[in-house]
Amino acid sequence: MDETGLQKNRANYVPLSPLSFLRRTARVYPQRIAVIDGDARRTWAQTYSRCAQAAAALAKRGIGEGDVVSFVAMNIPELLEAHFAVPMAGAVLNAINVRLDAATMRYIFSHGESKIVFTDAEFAGKVAEAASGMQNPPAVVKIGGEECEYESFLAEAGGEELCKMPRDEWAPIALNYTSGTTGKPKGVVYHHRGAYLMAFGSAAAWDMQKHGMYLYTVPMFHCNGWGYAWTQTMLAGTVVCLRKIDGGEILRLIAEHNVDSLCGAPIVLSLIIEAARGARLARPVKVKTAGAPPPPSVLSAAEEAGFSVTHVYGLTETFGHTTICAWQEEWDSFSPEELSAKKAQQGVGYPILEDWAVLDSEGKPLPADGKSMGEIGLRGNTVMSGYLKDAKATAAAFSGEWFKTGDLAVLHPDGYMQIKDRLKDVIISGGENISSVAVEAALCAHPAVLLAAVVAMPDEKWGEAPCAFVELRPGKTPPNEEEVIAFCRNRLPGYMLPRRIIFAELPKTATGKIQKYKLREKAKSL
Amino acid sequence: MDETGLQKNRANYVPLSPLSFLRRTARVYPQRIAVIDGDARRTWAQTYSRCAQAAAALAKRGIGEGDVVSFVAMNIPELLEAHFAVPMAGAVLNAINVRLDAATMRYIFSHGESKIVFTDAEFAGKVAEAASGMQNPPAVVKIGGEECEYESFLAEAGGEELCKMPRDEWAPIALNYTSGTTGKPKGVVYHHRGAYLMAFGSAAAWDMQKHGMYLYTVPMFHCNGWGYAWTQTMLAGTVVCLRKIDGGEILRLIAEHNVDSLCGAPIVLSLIIEAARGARLARPVKVKTAGAPPPPSVLSAAEEAGFSVTHVYGLTETFGHTTICAWQEEWDSFSPEELSAKKAQQGVGYPILEDWAVLDSEGKPLPADGKSMGEIGLRGNTVMSGYLKDAKATAAAFSGEWFKTGDLAVLHPDGYMQIKDRLKDVIISGGENISSVAVEAALCAHPAVLLAAVVAMPDEKWGEAPCAFVELRPGKTPPNEEEVIAFCRNRLPGYMLPRRIIFAELPKTATGKIQKYKLREKAKSL
Repeated sequence: MDETGLQKNRANYVPLSPLSFLRRTARVYPQRIAVIDGDARRTWAQTYSRCAQAAAALAKRGIGEGDVVSFVAMNIPELLEAHFAVPMAGAVLNAINVRLDAATMRYIFSHGESKIVFTDAEFAGKVAEAASGMQNPPAVVKIGGEECEYESFLAEAGGEELCKMPRDEWAPIALNYTSGTTGKPKGVVYHHRGAYLMAFGSAAAWDMQKHGMYLYTVPMFHCNGWGYAWTQTMLAGTVVCLRKIDGGEILRLIAEHNVDSLCGAPIVLSLIIEAARGARLARPVKVKTAGAPPPPSVLSAAEEAGFSVTHVYGLTETFGHTTICAWQEEWDSFSPEELSAKKAQQGVGYPILEDWAVLDSEGKPLPADGKSMGEIGLRGNTVMSGYLKDAKATAAAFSGEWFKTGDLAVLHPDGYMQIKDRLKDVIISGGENISSVAVEAALCAHPAVLLAAVVAMPDEKWGEAPCAFVELRPGKTPPNEEEVIAFCRNRLPGYMLPRRIIFAELPKTATGKIQKYKLREKAKSL
Repeated sequence: MDETGLQKNRANYVPLSPLSFLRRTARVYPQRIAVIDGDARRTWAQTYSRCAQAAAALAKRGIGEGDVVSFVAMNIPELLEAHFAVPMAGAVLNAINVRLDAATMRYIFSHGESKIVFTDAEFAGKVAEAASGMQNPPAVVKIGGEECEYESFLAEAGGEELCKMPRDEWAPIALNYTSGTTGKPKGVVYHHRGAYLMAFGSAAAWDMQKHGMYLYTVPMFHCNGWGYAWTQTMLAGTVVCLRKIDGGEILRLIAEHNVDSLCGAPIVLSLIIEAARGARLARPVKVKTAGAPPPPSVLSAAEEAGFSVTHVYGLTETFGHTTICAWQEEWDSFSPEELSAKKAQQGVGYPILEDWAVLDSEGKPLPADGKSMGEIGLRGNTVMSGYLKDAKATAAAFSGEWFKTGDLAVLHPDGYMQIKDRLKDVIISGGENISSVAVEAALCAHPAVLLAAVVAMPDEKWGEAPCAFVELRPGKTPPNEEEVIAFCRNRLPGYMLPRRIIFAELPKTATGKIQKYKLREKAKSL
């Protein structure tokens, strides 16, 4: 075919960006409710206007193309708006886990070169502490509380509105730091293209309808809240905000707003079920769960309460979830046990995922025999651009046509993946990733500690909890368990504290590497 | 932000292509039914295998990168498969309107440089006639009938399978000829990117769920059947084939297969309603209608029968429909009359459409006042690359950031577009576009005809029909109406024949241009 004159032009080629969703939804459904936060409600027209004003205010502060804007906030409307406002100024949204300690926040502000930090008043002290030690500290804007500065920040726009569309769909839209399983947190860079496609992928994979009512239980600082700020905007739905995970509060919000879907780690499901005390929902609610396979007891209790639970899998590096334990017709006849076992699998790719496989050490796909264990490899348009200023880690994460997840799995004969172990020794507690390396570093700071190895121990409530094995220095006064935990408390956020400290000589390989798999076995039997 | 090392690679950037949908659906749902045709059923695994074999067979015939493969067929499984098989060989699908006459088909084969034509046995004679007059006639493969050659064509693959993914998402995937309103048909080129995005756009705009049952009433030779071959594959749904539009047959298929959605011009809806004779569907069926605003009587009868009708709008140049008369909450309280009036509007953009406007003659958007009339301009990733080998027409269609549709509309204060007239004088009869210029040309071939002007006249059954106004040559024996229609029958397909011939002097402007708007007024009162 003679392709002369068939090139891209401004009418037939528009860089893919979720900003287009907000423009369209505000235009088509200006009066529909975009966000509910307590008694407050904002329409899509109001949301657009606030986002465009925030973008203009950022621009007036000199923030633009490629600048990083940090948020330390729970799921408040301002953070939802930031998913549009920040890129509308051409900048990059960096939503930070509010539970991180000041030192880690400082590292992120500094590594990401944040120009400005918006913080919930609640975390303003920690943010100030983090910024205080910096040479070029970012400006800080407080949201909420008695000294709320956000509305006056918006007023800096002087009523002007700005909505800069990206020149290139590969332009960065977000910067999300990993929990740092192998040391310092890494800055995962998202592109506009992936954020746009993920919205359609989530909607199609999960059969989401337009105008749905979504309860935002997943923190937006985790993979941009699995992308639902963008997905719900595409669907012209409503987002119900939630500041704190509380089973009773979640049930109340579901009933009050006719919530039809939510997401959360299995621990969130457990909390809801506990609060429900056997009561059934007035109408069914769809739940996507991830972070750990949902335990059979949680699954069955959730289904009995009226939740329809789907297990999904993904990583910060893949814009959140990108595989799904998709329902198959023949499962209709499965026993509850068979179904629980099946639903605990990580499943198959989303419609927007190009390929998934379990790879051998040379990067070749292993057979779907349910036995051959290898690393999960993913490929598609919802894989990160790479790690910010970390060529080495980026190179290590990509191998040929694969992004390597670091998770070990088998592929069952039906094509469904199941994770068997983690290549990285991350501990997942209540949906939070805990770096064993980080906890070990805190332990090793204790003068009496010679060596420390932290592994996951099963925990009924949180799924997993950190369990520390410690070798003491000879000649020092041996501390007891409580003392060591108290010591860590000054160095780690609460959720990362080791639940148990076991004093013992650590099992090692001939070359001196600690044999963590042996410790894992021990931790299971504690 | 320092973007060093954050470039695209094979793991994080995959050219968007609907071929990815087939690969994924065949992998995740191999045993689900992809297509139903009479008593025959094929699964997604079988469909993938047949497509990949057809691609291999094409390759063995030397057909590859950018070659054009024509189909002259009703909605049979082979044409559905061709939507994947042809691009899987790197080639470009050219589905041709079976109702065209041999001369127009010859023009298309020749202009598009078709390498091979697959034809329903039913149209083999016409295809042979079209090809016979050519210097380099395409090879012809018959499908169906007593001399079916398709299965032996597939066998040429020798069991080999080929699935070539496009190197670039801008690569052509389809070539669709317009009805040629302004003369010769123009070859509209579709890119992989647009076909991929349209699938998600249709699903999101129309709330389509996965595993739906779609009755394929729209011919796939019209804008690739509005893209549903690709959309249903993404959704792992089922396509029910239909060779002929027959109200009773449609109702039978809806009941037999639990069809949940279909598309069609208002005339199709009328035929179904007529066949239903007041009976109600067992369960609701969603219908997208286009080609003409659905008349109030059709709308209300369809809704009463259990159809939920949505009006959409688009053109061959926009991959089919790309605006939708999207439901608004406040319409719940509309009277039937208000609702009919509203539903007849062309509405607002799909989620994948970037922008839409009514433009003045300088290409500037007009206000949404319900009065200012201008040309509809569209912008987005589901706009064609351009017209094949027609730089002039391509340049005329694009103006700055707009694709100009040639349709005249107003924008209502709620942002909904409504078409008021057509810039081009196309007549839409039973969902078919009829070029007034083409009919005029046939009339003018008659020795006694001096001048002819063809406009639309209202037609209860077909929506519109061609009405001809003819000025006779002085000095010739004046023919009568029947004679002129009979004369045209040798030059035009049946559906393009003028319904009436009015002999009269044609109204002209001072510069001699025929004032068609006056003739339209006359035609309405006939």
